[in-house]
Amino acid sequence: MTSLLAVIAPPIGPRLPDPTAGTASFDVLLGIFVLFIGAKLGEEVARRLGQPAVVGELLGGFVVGPHALGLVTPGETADVLAEIGVVILLFTVGLEVRMDDLLAVGRPAVLTAVIAMILPMVAGVGIAVVAGEDVPAAAFVGLALAATSIGITSRVLAEMKVLSLPFARVVLGAAVIDDVLALIAIGLVSGAASGDLSASTLFVAVAAIGLVGLGFAAARRARGLSREVFTWPLFADSPLVPAFILMFALALVATWIGLAAIIGAFVAGLIVAETEASDELEHEMRPLGLIFIPFFFAVTGAQLDLGALLDPRVAVLAVVLIVAGVLTKALGGVLGSWSLGRWQSLAVGSGMVPRGEVGVVVATLGLASGLLGADLFSAILVAVLGTTIAAPYLLGATVPRAIAEREATEAGRSA
Amino acid sequence: MTSLLAVIAPPIGPRLPDPTAGTASFDVLLGIFVLFIGAKLGEEVARRLGQPAVVGELLGGFVVGPHALGLVTPGETADVLAEIGVVILLFTVGLEVRMDDLLAVGRPAVLTAVIAMILPMVAGVGIAVVAGEDVPAAAFVGLALAATSIGITSRVLAEMKVLSLPFARVVLGAAVIDDVLALIAIGLVSGAASGDLSASTLFVAVAAIGLVGLGFAAARRARGLSREVFTWPLFADSPLVPAFILMFALALVATWIGLAAIIGAFVAGLIVAETEASDELEHEMRPLGLIFIPFFFAVTGAQLDLGALLDPRVAVLAVVLIVAGVLTKALGGVLGSWSLGRWQSLAVGSGMVPRGEVGVVVATLGLASGLLGADLFSAILVAVLGTTIAAPYLLGATVPRAIAEREATEAGRSA
Repeated sequence: MTSLLAVIAPPIGPRLPDPTAGTASFDVLLGIFVLFIGAKLGEEVARRLGQPAVVGELLGGFVVGPHALGLVTPGETADVLAEIGVVILLFTVGLEVRMDDLLAVGRPAVLTAVIAMILPMVAGVGIAVVAGEDVPAAAFVGLALAATSIGITSRVLAEMKVLSLPFARVVLGAAVIDDVLALIAIGLVSGAASGDLSASTLFVAVAAIGLVGLGFAAARRARGLSREVFTWPLFADSPLVPAFILMFALALVATWIGLAAIIGAFVAGLIVAETEASDELEHEMRPLGLIFIPFFFAVTGAQLDLGALLDPRVAVLAVVLIVAGVLTKALGGVLGSWSLGRWQSLAVGSGMVPRGEVGVVVATLGLASGLLGADLFSAILVAVLGTTIAAPYLLGATVPRAIAEREATEAGRSA
Repeated sequence: MTSLLAVIAPPIGPRLPDPTAGTASFDVLLGIFVLFIGAKLGEEVARRLGQPAVVGELLGGFVVGPHALGLVTPGETADVLAEIGVVILLFTVGLEVRMDDLLAVGRPAVLTAVIAMILPMVAGVGIAVVAGEDVPAAAFVGLALAATSIGITSRVLAEMKVLSLPFARVVLGAAVIDDVLALIAIGLVSGAASGDLSASTLFVAVAAIGLVGLGFAAARRARGLSREVFTWPLFADSPLVPAFILMFALALVATWIGLAAIIGAFVAGLIVAETEASDELEHEMRPLGLIFIPFFFAVTGAQLDLGALLDPRVAVLAVVLIVAGVLTKALGGVLGSWSLGRWQSLAVGSGMVPRGEVGVVVATLGLASGLLGADLFSAILVAVLGTTIAAPYLLGATVPRAIAEREATEAGRSA
């Protein structure tokens, strides 16, 4: 994060001793600040143009990032702030979801997760094979296309205040299942690629299912627990700090097993949502979300490398992957949750579209293992970010109709 | 921050691809978590033993840190969280102080700052010369002893809810002046030591005084500004994000000039305190403080190296420096703010005692320039942290008497 210093003037005067030596480096703090400003200015421009706020934050991060103005290249600290940001986002989403409501949509959620994973995987493999790639590379393309990251979806749904509606809960439930399935699939593909397909993949799958299962069981038992469960420590005047510790701990456990940190954070949110501290915590988490969450979207946007599209092959592949990615997830949502109704199932499919950081991780794994070439890697990265930027628009088009459809059904039922 | 991984078991299963690759490293997140838990457990133990919470956080950081259990060694990210933590702390302190109240104690504040800087500097130089050090080394000892860091003091005063009393405002005002004086003194000593005593020191001094002066002028003009000054951007539903940006920006400007970041943050707080958004912001900053501020104290505590005291010369020097450091600051407070009354001036002196990160920075500069030997460096570091840990106890002993004294005066005046 030093490039900005070359842009602005050097510090006043000659080399006085740096009073920040030993504490946080000025460069890093400045880089963090620029990322935050970039996200907020991007949001401001997006809102004034009538576009989704989150697209503004993504593009703001892109603009200040290494592939555009180059003011800042996110490093370790920006990554940590981004990770804590998305963890806080999914924790607060979990806080707004009741366990029973989530289990009530279990059947469409499972169907959606499975179908919306198989279809993109098949499409990804097919596209890669047609493009002349070998089978291991094609498997990584399929995996990257099959992943789901609901960071952006949950923020859009929360802003639309529809998290309590059934189709939103199907998306959340399906995303959790999807992450467990993706973990297993990544283990299988990596194992097959490296020729080391041991029992460990099964073991990891069991641990992942165990964590989610235990979390759900804990949420059931947490029902109606009093606020004092959080405030008995003397350091806790309010539930915030103990809840933050629970969130952070479950995010770490999830990461340790191999799941995304946000799955652990979501489960922590589900647990806390059942207690009496729920409303107070929603209120206390808000300022933390306002400061941390923009880092997630800015850091994600900073990874976007539009320069890669100058290569026609990469550009064509990226466009084909984006189109296939959107269509297969939408179809998966429709097939998996058709029982909800036509527009609601399309809203589910739209919510499953973004690949986000999970897709980036899969592509990075493929590149690191030497199975993905640089051009295929770039195409996947652009496609992954393309689906992420498309999601708010798809949700904007489908959610209002889904709401209307649901209201019509409800009215019909009560009539 | 990797040592904890050696302590706990390795991740389940053999080397599955790391799903966090490309996002924040698991090790760093785990280290951050351990620091936070250490601080909170330390606070819990301290409170249950009737000790100041902040001493618990410092010692909690020490216990998990590299010089005790060695579970975590704070790196770049922990330093940044700590820096943001103390910046938030001083911003919220600034939020509780009215400009006029601060200016009303201008005279004792200036006197206290000057006297409580000269006395420790003379004492530090004298001790070092008696200990057989040469003049440049002695100058660094004097500087380290002269510094003031009010991070810990402001937290203790805020917890005691006495920030509005005159003696607390004298401490705050004197600390700001002290930091400007220290910046000039560091420039002079470094310049003299390197033989490069140019006009730049004067220039930096002018810039520093200019920033504080402009900040004070801005605070005057900010009086009664409506909430819309903060909420006109579409991204701002509440004043939090714009105020956070202002705080961060002034902290960066202060650092850039060569002042401590907390001076900029404090000035930002003073400005915002005059606006109509003041109360709302105090409320919104609270959760951020609860999460960020413990990192400052934990990271500070993690620097404490009690092992250095095994060397008798270091131990004797450290003890002499701590005693001299406490006595000279207390005397400086008494002489500088005697007009407030005996106990209130002692409370001022107590508040000026902690050297905190400013002293650490001076010692690090001396070591890096080769003017300070390793043993003298260790003694200064222990002494600096010793004064920081002593401060809550000194304030605990003096502040209640200062309050009583003030009430007696007020009663006498109204009778």
